[in-house]
Amino acid sequence: MSSYAIGVDLGGTNLRISAVDSDGNLLHKITSGAQVAKGRDFVVAEMTEAIRQLSVKFSSLGELEGIGIGVPGIIDKDTGIVRKSPNLPDWINYPVREEVERRLGTHVILENDANVAALGEKWLGAGREVDSLCMITVGTGVGGGLVLNGKIWRGMTGMAGEIGHMNVEPNGPPCGCGSHGCLEQLASATAIKRMAIEAITKGESPELGRAMKEEPEFSSLVVYQKAVQGDPVAQRIFRRVGTALGMTIASLVNVLNLPMYALFGGVVNAWDAFAPAMMEEIHKRSFVYVATESQANLPNTKKTIVTRALLGSDAGLYGAARLAMLEPHAMEKIEA
Amino acid sequence: MSSYAIGVDLGGTNLRISAVDSDGNLLHKITSGAQVAKGRDFVVAEMTEAIRQLSVKFSSLGELEGIGIGVPGIIDKDTGIVRKSPNLPDWINYPVREEVERRLGTHVILENDANVAALGEKWLGAGREVDSLCMITVGTGVGGGLVLNGKIWRGMTGMAGEIGHMNVEPNGPPCGCGSHGCLEQLASATAIKRMAIEAITKGESPELGRAMKEEPEFSSLVVYQKAVQGDPVAQRIFRRVGTALGMTIASLVNVLNLPMYALFGGVVNAWDAFAPAMMEEIHKRSFVYVATESQANLPNTKKTIVTRALLGSDAGLYGAARLAMLEPHAMEKIEA
Repeated sequence: MSSYAIGVDLGGTNLRISAVDSDGNLLHKITSGAQVAKGRDFVVAEMTEAIRQLSVKFSSLGELEGIGIGVPGIIDKDTGIVRKSPNLPDWINYPVREEVERRLGTHVILENDANVAALGEKWLGAGREVDSLCMITVGTGVGGGLVLNGKIWRGMTGMAGEIGHMNVEPNGPPCGCGSHGCLEQLASATAIKRMAIEAITKGESPELGRAMKEEPEFSSLVVYQKAVQGDPVAQRIFRRVGTALGMTIASLVNVLNLPMYALFGGVVNAWDAFAPAMMEEIHKRSFVYVATESQANLPNTKKTIVTRALLGSDAGLYGAARLAMLEPHAMEKIEA
Repeated sequence: MSSYAIGVDLGGTNLRISAVDSDGNLLHKITSGAQVAKGRDFVVAEMTEAIRQLSVKFSSLGELEGIGIGVPGIIDKDTGIVRKSPNLPDWINYPVREEVERRLGTHVILENDANVAALGEKWLGAGREVDSLCMITVGTGVGGGLVLNGKIWRGMTGMAGEIGHMNVEPNGPPCGCGSHGCLEQLASATAIKRMAIEAITKGESPELGRAMKEEPEFSSLVVYQKAVQGDPVAQRIFRRVGTALGMTIASLVNVLNLPMYALFGGVVNAWDAFAPAMMEEIHKRSFVYVATESQANLPNTKKTIVTRALLGSDAGLYGAARLAMLEPHAMEKIEA
């Protein structure tokens, strides 16, 4: 091993810190609950302590190229400030980079978590063979990240990739962002649960109604299980999820013409329940998709790939390390 | 003048060839009707003749950096083949680059016309101060082009920028592309005329009905004039145009977070009739837009600009020349 980087993935539930070598081998991973409730100082102290441990552990084995930190929320990358983060309530205009650098005595790179996940998936996951990809994360919410020509596309203020807030149904369910009918309101785990409860309330599905009474943790997973068991209402909900995802991906294909759209997150485990409707919608609504498909036998044309991401939640961890390799930053020795 | 490039803009109506120096000064422009009906050989002969004239005329004044040709339709840039072009009926899998190069004895660069227009607008028009922009052309149809970090974003197969086929109304009017409710079906000149005729047929607007009887060339322009004169149905149509554009731009802002979205084309002359609804929709549907607006006083944040393009139909001409400068290609002396 000639060199390695340290990648940090800070989620609302877990804080994970890893050392990854330049070939993408995971050298070591430290996982701890992100004890968000104890405040940002506690989280940052834990993070810097783990970074220090890893840098000491591997100092004799190779050069530390850099440190990348993926954080959920709105990041000002130039200043290293977290403006706002739904999962980290007290991180408001918090200069986290400065704080981490002060404690470590070296530079680090900050990036939005969805963006680093897209970069990780590009580097070592489903996107290994392509230059560019769009990652769509379908979990509690719907997020996304773009990698164009091997680099994260951040946009003017680092807010690019808000795929969950592309419009699907102009007069659809209200969204926290202020709009109506955003993808997030039609495809997230939260949306699936809401649609199930709506159906139960209307008396459309006694089956789902029973499940809600029986399961204290009624969730999108239960709705999925009912869909697999053949409940037509649960199946209809997942078709709506697939249609919404398909419409959004169709628009993205028409505008960006990327080689790959990779889906990731808890809801993606229900692939067989939503993917047929999704692919049908993409075929119907994206002549660019159809063109890449029908011209796949002509020279210099390729098929658009819509697929599941491969790395799962490790994508962010690898991506954060990769970012540190791609964007060289002055590194000082970290004292033990 | 140390160097210049030749830019060609081939439309369905006009063929224009220009010499542009590296500072963006137009040295000379040749315009002729694109006599498409006479066949592709005729058009290509006319084009190469004009390129030859310009190269001879300016040969003593500076070095010819390159020749860029903007063509409507689906281009395979690697092979220089026009796959299909709605405005050039006999250009089907036509190796136009090879043909032009054979006649001129030197290399040329081929590109989609909407893409070169976006590049021209970035170079010398509304986008002079930004790195990236999205150009939306609202004419007979709706097209678009993306410039990211100063370069045309072509996508995997050169089909990026099909903004006219982003979805706006899932169950809206059918579109030639196979989908329903594409932006093109709600905001193009063709759509405006269709919506007016629908309103007339339903008896909703005696005013528009009279106008259609009186004007042999009933068009979106007439609908606009009626909107300006206060006809509520004509005004409603333009609000629908604005709403559709606003929804599309809101999604683009959320995904790409570009500094600028520039609108161009015949319909854009009706700016005052559709822009208020468009801006209202962008505010309502893009929290990324609102964030760039509200943070405009914070360091390192900037406002998203939605504006009219400045260069009009010259954007493509300048963009084609600019492309020839940005993508160096081996140049042989063109014989007189």
